[in-house]
Amino acid sequence: MSSFNTKLDPDTPRVSVASDQAFEVLKRIFCASGCSENISQQIAEHLIDASLCGVESHGVMRTLQYVEQFKSGYMNPRGEPEFCERAPGVWEVDGHEGIGIPAMHLAYSQGMSKAEKTGISALAVRHVGHTGRHGAFADHAAQAGFLTICVGGGNRKIWRQVAPHGGAKAMLPTNPWCVGIPGGHRGPVVLDFATSKIAGGWIYAARSAGALLPENCVIDSGGRPTRKPEDYFSGGAILPSGEHKGYALALIGELIGEAMLGPATTECHWLLITMNAAHFRERQGVGAVAEEILAELRACPPAPGFDRVEIPGEREREHRQRTTGVLSIPASTWDRIQALSGSASDSRLPFVLSSKVNNKGE
Amino acid sequence: MSSFNTKLDPDTPRVSVASDQAFEVLKRIFCASGCSENISQQIAEHLIDASLCGVESHGVMRTLQYVEQFKSGYMNPRGEPEFCERAPGVWEVDGHEGIGIPAMHLAYSQGMSKAEKTGISALAVRHVGHTGRHGAFADHAAQAGFLTICVGGGNRKIWRQVAPHGGAKAMLPTNPWCVGIPGGHRGPVVLDFATSKIAGGWIYAARSAGALLPENCVIDSGGRPTRKPEDYFSGGAILPSGEHKGYALALIGELIGEAMLGPATTECHWLLITMNAAHFRERQGVGAVAEEILAELRACPPAPGFDRVEIPGEREREHRQRTTGVLSIPASTWDRIQALSGSASDSRLPFVLSSKVNNKGE
Repeated sequence: MSSFNTKLDPDTPRVSVASDQAFEVLKRIFCASGCSENISQQIAEHLIDASLCGVESHGVMRTLQYVEQFKSGYMNPRGEPEFCERAPGVWEVDGHEGIGIPAMHLAYSQGMSKAEKTGISALAVRHVGHTGRHGAFADHAAQAGFLTICVGGGNRKIWRQVAPHGGAKAMLPTNPWCVGIPGGHRGPVVLDFATSKIAGGWIYAARSAGALLPENCVIDSGGRPTRKPEDYFSGGAILPSGEHKGYALALIGELIGEAMLGPATTECHWLLITMNAAHFRERQGVGAVAEEILAELRACPPAPGFDRVEIPGEREREHRQRTTGVLSIPASTWDRIQALSGSASDSRLPFVLSSKVNNKGE
Repeated sequence: MSSFNTKLDPDTPRVSVASDQAFEVLKRIFCASGCSENISQQIAEHLIDASLCGVESHGVMRTLQYVEQFKSGYMNPRGEPEFCERAPGVWEVDGHEGIGIPAMHLAYSQGMSKAEKTGISALAVRHVGHTGRHGAFADHAAQAGFLTICVGGGNRKIWRQVAPHGGAKAMLPTNPWCVGIPGGHRGPVVLDFATSKIAGGWIYAARSAGALLPENCVIDSGGRPTRKPEDYFSGGAILPSGEHKGYALALIGELIGEAMLGPATTECHWLLITMNAAHFRERQGVGAVAEEILAELRACPPAPGFDRVEIPGEREREHRQRTTGVLSIPASTWDRIQALSGSASDSRLPFVLSSKVNNKGE
């Protein structure tokens, strides 16, 4: 969506890095942090894919945050996700305080397997750190024929980031919602958004890159609008998206994560609902009608200031295709990642070094 | 939420009507339209409750629209909802082209009964006309201990109301989302919103009352912002709420209603997901933590221009309590309703007739 385009200042100096080189650097870093080789690979692959999809806030820049969180003891690098049935039909993936990316992989896989049999399944994901880019999991599940709704929250006492609608103080986490559904010829439709005006990750990204935030998204400790990332970290708050609507979605996430699934540990808890999209109608019919709907929208005349109407989820897939395996990363972010890996010279492509590579979050 | 307060012009002349008198008028009208006594009572009760809750767009003013839709053949007044199992575990309420209010009653009741046994249930509601105020059903289910997610859409070829984000033309219905979850001492938390900046009902309400629309919600046929309800009916469009976020929620609703559950007939189709909120944790724990979260939010310092932070769903319950059974209805709307019932003189309370009774959609 066009509103994403200016989240990082386009003048931020950038470097281009081949994804297989980035993979080795990231994997080495996570292994050195104490993660198993398998977990390290899953995290590295996930972050690189997010960067290739143009979702910079959930891409390789998260390496810095994760390493810090492993070091501080906030996440356990040795936490391996485990699927368990706590009572008949009560299914859970316990992340054992580890990073949430492999836990989410496991949850979606189990959710689909259960929904295959019963039509619909509910699964809790508990005791996990950051869960990465949810859209990646939803896209995968929708390609396999499943509608998924993933929502969560909890642990607001640590993650008070967002002011409620009408409030002057950060009270709630950004509690995202993610919904994926099979689409037409070009793949699934994926909604993956924070219930705040911007995701918390953008503030880390902007601070890491020395960039300004977009307007009217964040208030400072006095409740005044600000574009400076530091103001947020000094007692400010993010505003909810769509006023009372984003606030209500965030609050539902908090009630699910903390009241239904809590007490939350590590980052937060998630409820994953997985449904066979062909439960009520055969799969071919679902895809044919979806394609008809999406084709109509692609043909909608654009509003002034827009090139076209987009289908949620397609921008990321198109970005991934365009980048052909080369990441564009803010130079200062990549320097810090390389410093962590102890390999400051071998991972930058010598022939691509530009301050204006196209990576504005498209 | 405060942004609702100005949807109808506060200067609109209003009359006050006792709810039991309004009930008799509405019931008579629906019976005369061909509905059974039972269905007529359910519709009348539902609309009056919505008006008492201050949700004017879904209140007694809908009588005019429903009667027109029965007369035109758009809805069948004799359509009675029926619960059926189309295949093992594939549950549906078939509205038989009738009004959707009794069909939703039945769906929530069946959804709860199935979820009681399995933890979670999915149920389709098909072939229904307007389904009334969804928040009423969700509130009821949440009071009984259930998390519900109800979303739908379809039939956009008849109901092209909302422009996609970045588009200049109405392509999608307002496809609402409704989520209810048990809360604390003061009752459930209920999110019930159109994915457009305003619900379609507000435009009918404003036209019926001769009022202007709020700013930045509707574009005319040339894509220009407008406040005139008539501009919408002459080729305009409502804008999506929260830009790409509301658009994505609306599109998911359309894919569910039309691709998964279609082809849509009458108004649209709905997917109702019902989950026992005590599936993962005993009910008392859920309620205690919910109360803690909600109490914190109520104590949040208000932002400039706001009196307080509200809990979604509480405004409606508080409004119902305050109104003590007396409806405040735009005079022109009530005149038209009375004209339909053939009882223009017996249903207005003689001692309350004011142009500024407090009913601004709070």
